Amino acid sequence: MTYCLAVKVNEGLVLLSDTRTNAGLDDISRFRKMFIWEQPGERSVVLLTAGNLGVTQGVITRIEAAVDAASRGEEVESILTCSTLYRAAELVGEAMNAMQARDRARIEASGAAADATIILAGQRNGGEMRLFLIYTAGNFIEATEDTSFFQIGEHKYGKPILDRVINPETPLSDALKAAMISMDSTLRSNLSVGMPLDLAVVHAEQYGVVQSRRFESDDPVFRQISEAWSRELRAAFHALPEVPLR
Amino acid sequence: MTYCLAVKVNEGLVLLSDTRTNAGLDDISRFRKMFIWEQPGERSVVLLTAGNLGVTQGVITRIEAAVDAASRGEEVESILTCSTLYRAAELVGEAMNAMQARDRARIEASGAAADATIILAGQRNGGEMRLFLIYTAGNFIEATEDTSFFQIGEHKYGKPILDRVINPETPLSDALKAAMISMDSTLRSNLSVGMPLDLAVVHAEQYGVVQSRRFESDDPVFRQISEAWSRELRAAFHALPEVPLR
Repeated sequence: MTYCLAVKVNEGLVLLSDTRTNAGLDDISRFRKMFIWEQPGERSVVLLTAGNLGVTQGVITRIEAAVDAASRGEEVESILTCSTLYRAAELVGEAMNAMQARDRARIEASGAAADATIILAGQRNGGEMRLFLIYTAGNFIEATEDTSFFQIGEHKYGKPILDRVINPETPLSDALKAAMISMDSTLRSNLSVGMPLDLAVVHAEQYGVVQSRRFESDDPVFRQISEAWSRELRAAFHALPEVPLR
Repeated sequence: MTYCLAVKVNEGLVLLSDTRTNAGLDDISRFRKMFIWEQPGERSVVLLTAGNLGVTQGVITRIEAAVDAASRGEEVESILTCSTLYRAAELVGEAMNAMQARDRARIEASGAAADATIILAGQRNGGEMRLFLIYTAGNFIEATEDTSFFQIGEHKYGKPILDRVINPETPLSDALKAAMISMDSTLRSNLSVGMPLDLAVVHAEQYGVVQSRRFESDDPVFRQISEAWSRELRAAFHALPEVPLR
C-alpha cells in the first residue's frame, strides 16, 4: 500500500509520501513515490504516486523522457515547458491513459489491479499554486478553497487530523506538522505504510524552488514530532471531562 | 456503512455503535446495530452488527427466536442459556451460516455484497468477560491481552486513538471516552456513519447488568466530549515543536 498527501495553503504546498510497496504481505519493497522537477525562477512540479507500481513507473518514465527531450532542445511538450500547470496535469493524464491502454487488460487478466492515482502540485512564474488529483482514467480534479488537501493510498487513518486543522489560512509550518502527524497516525495503524518518508515544501511565489528532504526511520526530527504528538495527545485525552452514564 | 467498536479492559466492556445504513448514497436509513440480552445476576450478551442488513437482521431474528423459545421453557439452546459465551459465539456463527446458506448466492447474483460481521461481548456468572468477532463464514476470533478492542465497518478513521490509549489496564471511564472520540473522528470524516449512537457498558463481574443509553444528535454529553476533544486536540497540535526544513 501507500500513503501520500498534499496540502495546499495560502503560504505554500506541503507534500509527504511513504516508500513502502507490497505485492502481497510477504513481498515488501521500498520505492520512492515522490518525483520533483524544478526550473529555478520559473516552475516547480511535484508528483506523488499510488497504485499499481508498474503503471506509475511507466507514467513517470514517460514524463521524465519528455522533460529530458525538451531540455535537449527537442520540440516536445513537457510538464516543465507546457503553458500551464493545468496542461501539466493533462500531460500526466495522457501518460496514464497510455499506460492503461498498454497494460490494463493484461494486468486484470492476471488477477491484479491496474488502478493508479497521481497527485500533481506546483507553481509556475505567472500562475497560482495548483494542486491536482489525477485518476486511473486520466481525468483529474483540482483542490479548491473548500478542499485544501488530497490524499492517495491508505488515506483514512490520517484524515481526521487534516479535517480538523487544514484550511487555506493555516500557516505553512502548521500544515507541515499536520502532514507529519497524519503520516505518523497512518504508520502506527497500518503496516503497509512505512518509513522512510519523502517531504517536499513549495513556498508560494518562490518559483522553481522545492525544499525537500527524506526522513529515515531513525530521523530525530520526525521522532521528536511523533513523540511530542503522543505525549500531547495523551494529555489532551486526560483533560477530557468524565462521561456520566445515566 | 457502519461503525461499531467494542473495547475490553480489566474493569469492563464498552460497546458503541452508530445507526446509519445505506444502499447507495441516495438511500440512507436508520437502524439499530446494537442488541442486548440480560439475565440479572447470570449473564449479559451484547451484539454489534455490520455488513448486509438483511443478513444481520436474519441472524438477530434467529437468536431472538431461540431466546424467546428458551424463556418459554422450550428445550432450545440460546445465547442466554448455553453453557459458555464461547458457545454463544458459536450459536451466532451458526445463525450466520444459516443466513449465508439461504441468501448469499442470490444476493451476489444481484450484484450486492452478502458479507457481514458481528461482535459479541458479555460475561456470565462463573466466567470471564469475553469479546468475540464473528465473520461472514461463521468462524470467529477472541480478543486477548494483546488486542483489547474490535472494530467493524468503517474502522480506520477511529483506530489511531484506540491504538494509542487502549490496553487491559485502561480504566473503564477512559475506555468509554476513547470509544466516544474514536466514533467522533469517524462521524466527522465519513458521511456514511451517523448519529444517533447506542452505547452499552458492562462492568466486570456485575453479571447480567448492562448500562445502556442512546446519544441523539443533539445529546449534550456527546457534544461536550466532542467539543472538548476538538479544543484539546487543537491545543495539543499547537504545543508541537517547530519542524526545521534542513
